Amino acid sequence: MNELTILISCPDQVGLVTNITSVLAAHQLNIIAMREFVDEANKAFFTRIACTGNLENKTRLEQKLLESLPPEAEVNVIDQQEKQIAILVTKEYHCLAEILIKNQFKTLGANVKCVIGNYESLRDFTEKLGIPYFYVDHNGKDKTQFEKEIKAILNQFDLNYLVLAKFMRILSAEFVKDYDGKVINIHHSFLPAFIGANPYRQAFERGVKIIGATAHFVTDHLDEGPIITQHTTHIDHNFGVKEMVRAGKEIEKKVLLEALELIFEDRVFVSGNKTVIFK
Amino acid sequence: MNELTILISCPDQVGLVTNITSVLAAHQLNIIAMREFVDEANKAFFTRIACTGNLENKTRLEQKLLESLPPEAEVNVIDQQEKQIAILVTKEYHCLAEILIKNQFKTLGANVKCVIGNYESLRDFTEKLGIPYFYVDHNGKDKTQFEKEIKAILNQFDLNYLVLAKFMRILSAEFVKDYDGKVINIHHSFLPAFIGANPYRQAFERGVKIIGATAHFVTDHLDEGPIITQHTTHIDHNFGVKEMVRAGKEIEKKVLLEALELIFEDRVFVSGNKTVIFK
Amino acid sequence: MNELTILISCPDQVGLVTNITSVLAAHQLNIIAMREFVDEANKAFFTRIACTGNLENKTRLEQKLLESLPPEAEVNVIDQQEKQIAILVTKEYHCLAEILIKNQFKTLGANVKCVIGNYESLRDFTEKLGIPYFYVDHNGKDKTQFEKEIKAILNQFDLNYLVLAKFMRILSAEFVKDYDGKVINIHHSFLPAFIGANPYRQAFERGVKIIGATAHFVTDHLDEGPIITQHTTHIDHNFGVKEMVRAGKEIEKKVLLEALELIFEDRVFVSGNKTVIFK
Amino acid sequence: MNELTILISCPDQVGLVTNITSVLAAHQLNIIAMREFVDEANKAFFTRIACTGNLENKTRLEQKLLESLPPEAEVNVIDQQEKQIAILVTKEYHCLAEILIKNQFKTLGANVKCVIGNYESLRDFTEKLGIPYFYVDHNGKDKTQFEKEIKAILNQFDLNYLVLAKFMRILSAEFVKDYDGKVINIHHSFLPAFIGANPYRQAFERGVKIIGATAHFVTDHLDEGPIITQHTTHIDHNFGVKEMVRAGKEIEKKVLLEALELIFEDRVFVSGNKTVIFK
Repeated sequence: MNELTILISCPDQVGLVTNITSVLAAHQLNIIAMREFVDEANKAFFTRIACTGNLENKTRLEQKLLESLPPEAEVNVIDQQEKQIAILVTKEYHCLAEILIKNQFKTLGANVKCVIGNYESLRDFTEKLGIPYFYVDHNGKDKTQFEKEIKAILNQFDLNYLVLAKFMRILSAEFVKDYDGKVINIHHSFLPAFIGANPYRQAFERGVKIIGATAHFVTDHLDEGPIITQHTTHIDHNFGVKEMVRAGKEIEKKVLLEALELIFEDRVFVSGNKTVIFK
Repeated sequence: MNELTILISCPDQVGLVTNITSVLAAHQLNIIAMREFVDEANKAFFTRIACTGNLENKTRLEQKLLESLPPEAEVNVIDQQEKQIAILVTKEYHCLAEILIKNQFKTLGANVKCVIGNYESLRDFTEKLGIPYFYVDHNGKDKTQFEKEIKAILNQFDLNYLVLAKFMRILSAEFVKDYDGKVINIHHSFLPAFIGANPYRQAFERGVKIIGATAHFVTDHLDEGPIITQHTTHIDHNFGVKEMVRAGKEIEKKVLLEALELIFEDRVFVSGNKTVIFK
Repeated sequence: MNELTILISCPDQVGLVTNITSVLAAHQLNIIAMREFVDEANKAFFTRIACTGNLENKTRLEQKLLESLPPEAEVNVIDQQEKQIAILVTKEYHCLAEILIKNQFKTLGANVKCVIGNYESLRDFTEKLGIPYFYVDHNGKDKTQFEKEIKAILNQFDLNYLVLAKFMRILSAEFVKDYDGKVINIHHSFLPAFIGANPYRQAFERGVKIIGATAHFVTDHLDEGPIITQHTTHIDHNFGVKEMVRAGKEIEKKVLLEALELIFEDRVFVSGNKTVIFK
Repeated sequence: MNELTILISCPDQVGLVTNITSVLAAHQLNIIAMREFVDEANKAFFTRIACTGNLENKTRLEQKLLESLPPEAEVNVIDQQEKQIAILVTKEYHCLAEILIKNQFKTLGANVKCVIGNYESLRDFTEKLGIPYFYVDHNGKDKTQFEKEIKAILNQFDLNYLVLAKFMRILSAEFVKDYDGKVINIHHSFLPAFIGANPYRQAFERGVKIIGATAHFVTDHLDEGPIITQHTTHIDHNFGVKEMVRAGKEIEKKVLLEALELIFEDRVFVSGNKTVIFK
């Protein structure tokens, strides 16, 4: 007996659930949890099914499901192997540390294969926890060269996701395309407020009473990819920029880790510029 | 074309979803949203299905669903008529007003048929909003007589639910049994903390940093029925009992109204002493 | 014995607290609570002092305090009389009702003198609760004329504040200047995100996971006045625009009522385009 | 120029603030922030003052303040040296890791001198981050002996606080008395709900919709010391005990770290069985 997660998206039509569950029943798979969503504006159907059973041939199940669904359907049968990830950082430790600690104690739901930084600041800590650290300097080279060096490192691993844990360089559209749907970023504001640089300074100047953070998939439009998770926290007039940054870091790590947990448990669909998330 | 909500609970077994959705497909019903939950400890299955279609015979659909399910199954096909409710109050206005305002502007999802109070305090306000107010004095009579008078009023209406909106008398086991699963109460604490009288005084004495409220179905064990919704809010040393009561009222009305919204939209199953809620 | 609230703002310098508290001690006033804040960027000092005592001459106390402070100081000694307010509305009832209910049960901390609407939609409800309702049509007249009619009504009352409770017309710079620092608005988004029209539609298109609302003082820059309170609530992919509007209304009324409570208790200073709030 | 924090508590009487601020002005100390609270039930006055200036003699300032105050006054002038702490653990890593990471990156506001565990589970991780780990087995010895061994280790350091970061042994009244007001515990429930063992199991059985955690000072009454911080998080019927434990850990570390931050910044007074906290 093993556990499977099945992700399906396709154009909506009558009878989809019956078709899908009939295929599962024919394979003696027992549904533990099933979630579905119909995006009525785009006539799109999404479902996530958790089931148990003795599956001999994953590809055959995918094939049978595809045969029962509209031709545009995407079907993904996932058995429970863990995801492999790389992390890109600059100087700030808080998101990296949260990930590496969970990795260390096997509660991340993924394996961190390496950390790549454009500074040396986080090498010592990363290596203490037994993770390879690669330094790629961005100085004195153009973005193409910088990203080529990063890719050369990433290519050494078989990666499912790339996590930007306060990585402060903007990736090119070409880079993002190569890892389409695989790059997750934590943005230090409650998007779409305070897009771009120095969001806490912007928030301070505006006198807001709440700050937030946003985890999103990276697309070639800066800060505009599909949002995965967001949280906010209250501040008041006693918060200068420094205090806002400190409070913001707590939100950032919470938001990023929640997003990663959802992704690593295969709960997140991307639909256009939005996400459908089955919690 | 009309909209239906279908609620089903039964012992869990393989193939339930396929059986159910096959019946719906045979009736040309299109599933808009489907939620299910398997309580693995009790081997119980719950589902809520929203669908659209031309249903000619509600009873026949229920019959067909029952035939496809284990004998213990409960099936409830609900078309969208609004619930009818009565409200019991004592002196505090905040929960009553929140309900009556939504009733007034047709956003409650239910019709308030009457308000019954054991004081006259809230008559004037209730009547201003056009709702009948019945005064049942509890003084000088035993609980049986008191409840008999309340029941006589309730029996004038065809009611789905009875809402205790800060009604400060404890109902007898007999009364509760007569309205089994139909009585919703707002308790002025975050249960199970501070059960019983004067929870804000208890909270003040204990020096807690959070207070809360709980909406629950009423059973014959005081403050121990299935919990529907809970919320909390932060307090600090500046809060005396008076300030805690004031802050608590805001939470109470939020918690109660959320619970009512869930119930009126047929999203709440009671399972033993717990609730299963499909938000 | 009566209770006083004293609000003071002035340029910061050494010894302010000593000077102020010495004057209070000389008047036999006992400090119950004192809050102060130094805006270091602007070298500005703010304090709110709650005290008790037998004050014979409010103006003399203000005079003595001014003598002990830098020449730019502003001093306001407030005894506990309630504020008088007017409310401007369009068609949505939720913020208006929340205010009128608290007004009805004497828990608003202010007296509502009248409601002015540019539609007739809310007349019936307002009048049921015994508050005068004035209809000022905006059709077929320019903004100057429209606002002139509103002012004519407002001038019949001695008002401390003007509350825009989902009033959907933009007030002119002239109007705002006449009521400088007296006009409070509820904006249906978490400012500065989604400034302007249709914020829930904007939020839906962007696929955000949180929506919010903002209460702020109105200045002549649309949606850019000093922020008083903000709250947010989580949403997910199941929320269409309609569901976001419904959830948003709950946040809007909470945010506005919190702002009003703070203002009516004299806890809010405006400092440039920000607020200093002593909760 | 250095920064000072001054903590004062004493019986309330008229003129305290004037007396205190006069002494500070006489020492040319400039008040940056001042918070005060009068516990009216107990006629007790608390203040926390942050100020800057050239202080030559801390003891003399304390003496002068004491002379200006009622005889029962407690005065504590603190310059900004960091606190020294020890951590007691059992097997769970999440609170320990959060503390050690902040310690590693110098953002804890305290120095971790050692970790003591009654299992070896957390030695490896602790030592990787360069902190001494001491193993004290509790098996086969009575509590007196067990605690004697712990004390022998603690006595090697000059400690301000002892943090129980998921330490699952109950300390004796004698031990607690020796470290009176110095021991902080994280309790895995929203006290006073679910006191004692297996709170998540209790919460699961009760079907609550919220779980929480509580950081408190340890007194000789189990789970009944003064509460410092509490937070809650929503759960639903999908949460079994395992999922509740996982969600609970996130709350636990947040609650504990917030409490520690407040304590290390000298913002927490203990007053009877409650805390007064100047955030």
